[in-house]
Amino acid sequence: MATFPLPPGSTIGILGGGQLGRMLALAAARLGFDTAVLDPEPDSPAGRVAALQVTAGYDDEDGLRRLAERCEAITFEFENVPAAALERLVALGAEVAPGPRALAFTQDRVAEKRFVREVGAETVEFQPVDGLEDLISGLARLGTPALLKTRREGYDGKGQAWVRDRADAAAAWDSIGGRPAVLEARADFVRELSVIAARGRDGAVACYPAGENRHAGGVLRTTLAPAPDAGAVQPAAEAVARRVLEGLEYVGVLGLELFELADGRLLVNEIAPRVHNTGHWTQDGCACDQFEQHVRAVAGWPLGPTRALVPVEMENLLGPEVERWPGIAADPSARLHLYGKGEPRPGRKMGHVNRLRPPA
Amino acid sequence: MATFPLPPGSTIGILGGGQLGRMLALAAARLGFDTAVLDPEPDSPAGRVAALQVTAGYDDEDGLRRLAERCEAITFEFENVPAAALERLVALGAEVAPGPRALAFTQDRVAEKRFVREVGAETVEFQPVDGLEDLISGLARLGTPALLKTRREGYDGKGQAWVRDRADAAAAWDSIGGRPAVLEARADFVRELSVIAARGRDGAVACYPAGENRHAGGVLRTTLAPAPDAGAVQPAAEAVARRVLEGLEYVGVLGLELFELADGRLLVNEIAPRVHNTGHWTQDGCACDQFEQHVRAVAGWPLGPTRALVPVEMENLLGPEVERWPGIAADPSARLHLYGKGEPRPGRKMGHVNRLRPPA
Repeated sequence: MATFPLPPGSTIGILGGGQLGRMLALAAARLGFDTAVLDPEPDSPAGRVAALQVTAGYDDEDGLRRLAERCEAITFEFENVPAAALERLVALGAEVAPGPRALAFTQDRVAEKRFVREVGAETVEFQPVDGLEDLISGLARLGTPALLKTRREGYDGKGQAWVRDRADAAAAWDSIGGRPAVLEARADFVRELSVIAARGRDGAVACYPAGENRHAGGVLRTTLAPAPDAGAVQPAAEAVARRVLEGLEYVGVLGLELFELADGRLLVNEIAPRVHNTGHWTQDGCACDQFEQHVRAVAGWPLGPTRALVPVEMENLLGPEVERWPGIAADPSARLHLYGKGEPRPGRKMGHVNRLRPPA
Repeated sequence: MATFPLPPGSTIGILGGGQLGRMLALAAARLGFDTAVLDPEPDSPAGRVAALQVTAGYDDEDGLRRLAERCEAITFEFENVPAAALERLVALGAEVAPGPRALAFTQDRVAEKRFVREVGAETVEFQPVDGLEDLISGLARLGTPALLKTRREGYDGKGQAWVRDRADAAAAWDSIGGRPAVLEARADFVRELSVIAARGRDGAVACYPAGENRHAGGVLRTTLAPAPDAGAVQPAAEAVARRVLEGLEYVGVLGLELFELADGRLLVNEIAPRVHNTGHWTQDGCACDQFEQHVRAVAGWPLGPTRALVPVEMENLLGPEVERWPGIAADPSARLHLYGKGEPRPGRKMGHVNRLRPPA
């Protein structure tokens, strides 16, 4: 059994070897930890900076066992890891954080929204959709346009379709594969904010200043943090984050996507139970970034400071945009972060750049 | 043949798998590079965060060949790598930076001091010592006490002996093993400064603000940077660094240890042709730290900014001092860096802490 706080030299396991796992592994190494990454693909971005990569599927009993035996604590880099994998790791005696409870709520958009409302926070109006009839009745109740999303496994705009009117319903239902879904009323928001927040094993909560996000085609393009003029909503955003973290008995970092309405109310759009793309600005804007914060929480260390030292604009480098690296490298106000991925397929997250802004 | 600047995805080789190699590998990973580490010990601190560790001696032909074949550029983490290893890598077609020329000058304390004087900078008075007679004549010329150092392979106070008077000479000569040496006059300095400086493949030079260093028992304990009241000597320190970098046709980061005299003159005490312990403060005090800077230079990228964003006091954690990690982890002004080493033997560099100071 691991005892917390984990001493340096312990090994932290990461399910998933993409860029989030890579940046977690780099942060863990700075604190003197080893990492072991489980990923189905050999030589994953995270595996290439880890002490060990276990190349296995998330349902591979032998791979999960190897990870559990090697690691004093295990976390994951994305929420579409099968819940069964976490449960198996727990059964093998592993210390998994965030725990299966957080994953269960956040893997199902309906369960997530119900949970958010139960802890006293707001969401858009929504309706579960198990068939075309539900969709049609939902459109009547929520109005159009409305957004149809699969209950599970969507991210970066995948598994989503706008339904403009009732005549659209069947096509939209088909386009998401006719899978269990949720229909969401259109939120009349003025901007999208996100808050990166953490809860330690001791129950302490820490929130970074909210960032303002811009998307294109369902994919995040930029985060500006701290969000301009967010002073008024920061306390409300932190209060929501605290209720969510405590309600999930959460350990680790999560990303909370929020819609800010014209009257200042905040709706929770999505909970990502992991380090989050909208928190990458913390790498160059804060003393302790979201990756170190997550490692601290998972390892049972005290949480680190979350104050913004300098305003940052984070921009994702998607697909061939990564070819702009020479110009970014030559810009003294730009901090470049690349993920060690090969093929720059269109839309693929290849890296990001944090631009340090003069303080306001 | 590699062409510069190296694109992300290239592999950078590092001779030596200790903490400096580890922090270089982490910086390289942030920029999207892979690293390959050659070290005689398996599972070295750097090897555990590298895509590949070649476990081989520095004189192992097969190991050097594997490194040369895998890497687009190769560097080293400490200056006691055999010059023959670098020459062999160059012969194998590898792009090695810094080059063998820099190593040749800095591996021999006499050649180094002569070089420093040739480029127009100052050193303490010194005399080469090849035997007891040289030592005795040197003491007569330079006065006592004087410092006897082996010409090669000393670091952290090893291979050094103070000679208090002529009666001490034979014992001092024996204590350093009767090897070729240099006798240095005592410098009547007010403090020790160091400057971390870099030169790119394009010849550009960049210097960080000087730091003020405190040693105990020949080992660095703290660096305070920017050094208090160093504004007056910074231009002179930068001028010396530039002459040294250009004289060595240097590519990469080096550490220049300086004695500041009461009249403001600077003597060059030592040139370390590598990232340097007195530059660790840059990790939390600057946007681009010395490790990223070195990777940029080696990869033929533009050098990064060197301005201090916040004053930092760096403290080394030696041997069992690393057990203080829980208190350091709980201090929001302290940034902890641990090296992933096992046994905390007395005096062993296990990690360091950067304390962020309020701006002066």
